Amino acid sequence: MKIVYTVQALREEVKRAKKEGKSVGLVPTMGFLHEGHVSLMNAAREQTDFVVVSIFVNPTQFGPNEDLESYPRDFERDSRRCEDASVDIIFHPSVEEMYKGRYSTYVTCEGEITKVLCGASRPEHFKGVTSVVAKLFNMVAPNKAFFGQKDAQQVAVIEKMVRELDFDLEIVPCPIVREVDGLALSSRNTYLSDTERKEALVLSNALKHAEMRILDGERNAERIISEMRAIIESAPSAEIDYVEIVSAQTLESVKELSGDTLIAMAVKIGKPRLIDNLRIMI
Amino acid sequence: MKIVYTVQALREEVKRAKKEGKSVGLVPTMGFLHEGHVSLMNAAREQTDFVVVSIFVNPTQFGPNEDLESYPRDFERDSRRCEDASVDIIFHPSVEEMYKGRYSTYVTCEGEITKVLCGASRPEHFKGVTSVVAKLFNMVAPNKAFFGQKDAQQVAVIEKMVRELDFDLEIVPCPIVREVDGLALSSRNTYLSDTERKEALVLSNALKHAEMRILDGERNAERIISEMRAIIESAPSAEIDYVEIVSAQTLESVKELSGDTLIAMAVKIGKPRLIDNLRIMI
Repeated sequence: MKIVYTVQALREEVKRAKKEGKSVGLVPTMGFLHEGHVSLMNAAREQTDFVVVSIFVNPTQFGPNEDLESYPRDFERDSRRCEDASVDIIFHPSVEEMYKGRYSTYVTCEGEITKVLCGASRPEHFKGVTSVVAKLFNMVAPNKAFFGQKDAQQVAVIEKMVRELDFDLEIVPCPIVREVDGLALSSRNTYLSDTERKEALVLSNALKHAEMRILDGERNAERIISEMRAIIESAPSAEIDYVEIVSAQTLESVKELSGDTLIAMAVKIGKPRLIDNLRIMI
Repeated sequence: MKIVYTVQALREEVKRAKKEGKSVGLVPTMGFLHEGHVSLMNAAREQTDFVVVSIFVNPTQFGPNEDLESYPRDFERDSRRCEDASVDIIFHPSVEEMYKGRYSTYVTCEGEITKVLCGASRPEHFKGVTSVVAKLFNMVAPNKAFFGQKDAQQVAVIEKMVRELDFDLEIVPCPIVREVDGLALSSRNTYLSDTERKEALVLSNALKHAEMRILDGERNAERIISEMRAIIESAPSAEIDYVEIVSAQTLESVKELSGDTLIAMAVKIGKPRLIDNLRIMI
């Protein structure tokens, strides 16, 4: 495994691999890697010949009052995890390497897809995501890029960007990885106190409840959401940002559940804002 | 020469050429090809092995009151010109092929570079340009892309986009091609009446005057601009949008001329809005 810090060094490594006829898989991350990230690397390892993991805490996707400064970082541990997952290249650029000089070029999905759910309370977030991902796509030109389904809206937005800007690659969404008790893995779980860690289970519990109700035949979104909110609000430190049921493709909210459906939420548990979701075909 | 109408067919042709080890040159155009475009094709022919010309009147770079509907089109003649210039592929997509469904993804250079000169009176223009050019770059993945220096600001904006979004290709700006009397070639010259055609010479005459004054040692931008305006205003049908002297790299206006300098103007002569410029190293 090699660690490279510049776009030029990255390009040289990727080009060498391509010359050898290897297909290239890209796993974009912000580091502080957990088993969710490892599952992406494993998928990349299985589906492509040469695996690039980028580790970059991207400032442009954080809002002014968000946790850019305190976002957890541990590059030593991250690089061991990548090594263990047989990654070929870690790309670990500085902010200056990514955003040189008077940087001002951004890729924006302007549709409703970036304004709902997390986009409502994080208005600039997806613009930062699509821009940095477009840059990584141009640097690596991967055959496939791997993203966690935990960030369901991110996957939908990036798939739209790939389709509309005609990137010649395939997005591979990978399933959410959870702790045994149900908590979705997230780098931000590290912020949770012991009490909050227990209370954070209301997110996955609310999703399990929704799934059960749907299996029972419930199709009314308002009723399901209201029951989910009650479960979440049973945790003293929970502060709901949103609980919504939307079409998984367009992210438009639905009244009666049918077809490819996404149940998504963002909830502050103490300091950290956690997200979780369930995608279900009805 | 082949003519293709879909992204998929374009990709197949380009991929076959690349497999044969050929380098690829892209010449993006809006059609109604003149000798200026032919010079771009010739440059592409000389510098790359496989030449793709796109012909697409891109609606997203026209403002609401601009000439999208009346923009001149003659695909038959265009394809003969491409054939004569030994082009390999014409890509001639429909608007629907380029902007499918509820299209909403755009690439924007947000800096001053898109707000000055033509950007001041055409606020959405460069966003349309960078977005469609990013799409074409992703479709073709050319080694080099060829643009006319007549659209000097467009070249500067696209170079900034390529640098900042890390497109792996080289922009080749090509010199302005002029009629023998000095008028810069433009598809929009076709709008000019006989009288207006004569009056349109004030643009290139003003640039010639500026060049002469600079060779004489004049370095004061305000004085040069004021003399240029007087020349342009001598034409009864001329209506100046702007005459400016800026740094060629940043497009920031300068008071005293030095270094890499761009003298640029946009002037309505009757109906059409014409642009012209001179890039000069001082």
